[in-house]
Amino acid sequence: MSRISYVNQMEEWEQEFSFSIPINVRFSETDMFGHLNNTVMFVYFEEARIEYFKHMEFMQEWVKMSVEMMPVVADLQCDYIRQVYFGESLRLYVKSARVGTSSVDLHYMAKNEQGKICFVGRGTMVNVSKKTGKSMSWPEEWKERLESK
Amino acid sequence: MSRISYVNQMEEWEQEFSFSIPINVRFSETDMFGHLNNTVMFVYFEEARIEYFKHMEFMQEWVKMSVEMMPVVADLQCDYIRQVYFGESLRLYVKSARVGTSSVDLHYMAKNEQGKICFVGRGTMVNVSKKTGKSMSWPEEWKERLESK
Amino acid sequence: MSRISYVNQMEEWEQEFSFSIPINVRFSETDMFGHLNNTVMFVYFEEARIEYFKHMEFMQEWVKMSVEMMPVVADLQCDYIRQVYFGESLRLYVKSARVGTSSVDLHYMAKNEQGKICFVGRGTMVNVSKKTGKSMSWPEEWKERLESK
Amino acid sequence: MSRISYVNQMEEWEQEFSFSIPINVRFSETDMFGHLNNTVMFVYFEEARIEYFKHMEFMQEWVKMSVEMMPVVADLQCDYIRQVYFGESLRLYVKSARVGTSSVDLHYMAKNEQGKICFVGRGTMVNVSKKTGKSMSWPEEWKERLESK
Repeated sequence: MSRISYVNQMEEWEQEFSFSIPINVRFSETDMFGHLNNTVMFVYFEEARIEYFKHMEFMQEWVKMSVEMMPVVADLQCDYIRQVYFGESLRLYVKSARVGTSSVDLHYMAKNEQGKICFVGRGTMVNVSKKTGKSMSWPEEWKERLESK
Repeated sequence: MSRISYVNQMEEWEQEFSFSIPINVRFSETDMFGHLNNTVMFVYFEEARIEYFKHMEFMQEWVKMSVEMMPVVADLQCDYIRQVYFGESLRLYVKSARVGTSSVDLHYMAKNEQGKICFVGRGTMVNVSKKTGKSMSWPEEWKERLESK
Repeated sequence: MSRISYVNQMEEWEQEFSFSIPINVRFSETDMFGHLNNTVMFVYFEEARIEYFKHMEFMQEWVKMSVEMMPVVADLQCDYIRQVYFGESLRLYVKSARVGTSSVDLHYMAKNEQGKICFVGRGTMVNVSKKTGKSMSWPEEWKERLESK
Repeated sequence: MSRISYVNQMEEWEQEFSFSIPINVRFSETDMFGHLNNTVMFVYFEEARIEYFKHMEFMQEWVKMSVEMMPVVADLQCDYIRQVYFGESLRLYVKSARVGTSSVDLHYMAKNEQGKICFVGRGTMVNVSKKTGKSMSWPEEWKERLESK
């Protein structure tokens, strides 16, 4: 799997994940080819990302009207490795792969019940000002929390 | 089709529609049974309803921050008549079937390229106050516009 | 709530449910009005219905290529009672309200963490032949299982 | 925009597109942050890709039961440049950026009504055997068609 540019060494990369959420593949998420439609992985990434941010107590802050920052997705990508079918129970992992001044690069990995990797992904989130739309530095304490996970 | 409680006499009901929008069935909207997933009709109803409200120049008002009313869906229903497949081009019709003091009962009908009805539906929209969440009477002029279409 | 035609007496109706699944409201399921988009309830109904059918060991049969029956949704409806927001954990209940020769009328109820009903619904499922598309009688043993839940 | 690895020189890259489809942003595709949810771009990419394949008369072949090939998405990515809002009319462009023996690298670009680029993307499609799931060489004539667009 050397074709995946953001994965240097697969076993090592795989072992750096600790946070994960369970995902049940919905019937409405399949398509006429009989498997999980390729657009749904990004819905799962969003769910995992938000649970990860909740776990770090960021999400609760961002949705407050009084808080002047919000997270914005700068880019997203997904590499499809194994077909996923209706009724499968996946485990979706997230980690902070690189923490910048006002951004964080998140990596994603989905495994099926046999522990096989079905798809992986990554994407940069930027912390922006709700007023100006410009990027804002992470509060120092948030940066530390991101770096520790 | 006497089983559909909100359709008294089908031909007459069918002829009362004038507003419609085109819909292309997306691949991601099918499911592993090979046809349009049954949850997607409500996405189409919403799209048609909003275009209908735009056509009457309501939607532009509702999304304004300064306007104190917003439309709320009270209920929705759909009766499935014919399977719909990927790549079909549908025409989705909407009409105001009954206009109340602060609500409107909208009816929906989807036809395929052969002019056959694939599914029909209905639902009540209520005009509510953004502040209190309580229903608000339609402005008189809006009520007239709804009754004329 | 006497406006909901399929609910005779609310407390009694509510107590007839026993099967339920947990649902977490996803961020991507909200809309710009800040709450759960009204089309998503039908996705939840489908997920609950399928888990209910799995629980009765029907779903495993239906998806088999060798089995000549499949379930088809004849109609669906939803009554919206309380707004639902991102991050809420719902419990979605399903029951067989009436079992016909080749159909079943399913009822749905969603409660939030405070035990308040957020939305309810119903819909008829018909058992049809994969070959002819015509309705097929339930196997006797399936009918019994449906009637007992 | 040098951060986008698959765009060497933006003006040149932009001018290589000729095929496009119109997209209307649906209300149900927004989220509580008020803009188009970041997972929906991939639904648009799929719609554009399929219309592009239809235009080249591939799609009609792939969905046939008798045809032993099907297209599989190997990877997908999106770079978000400008927020997109409800009611916007986008134009979504697709092109074949590189044609391999059994794969094609598609590029995507979405512009708003002011001609501003809102998001761009890319992804590799692989032609695989329905039986074995292994990649299959493009029919020579298909390869030529892909290279000419």
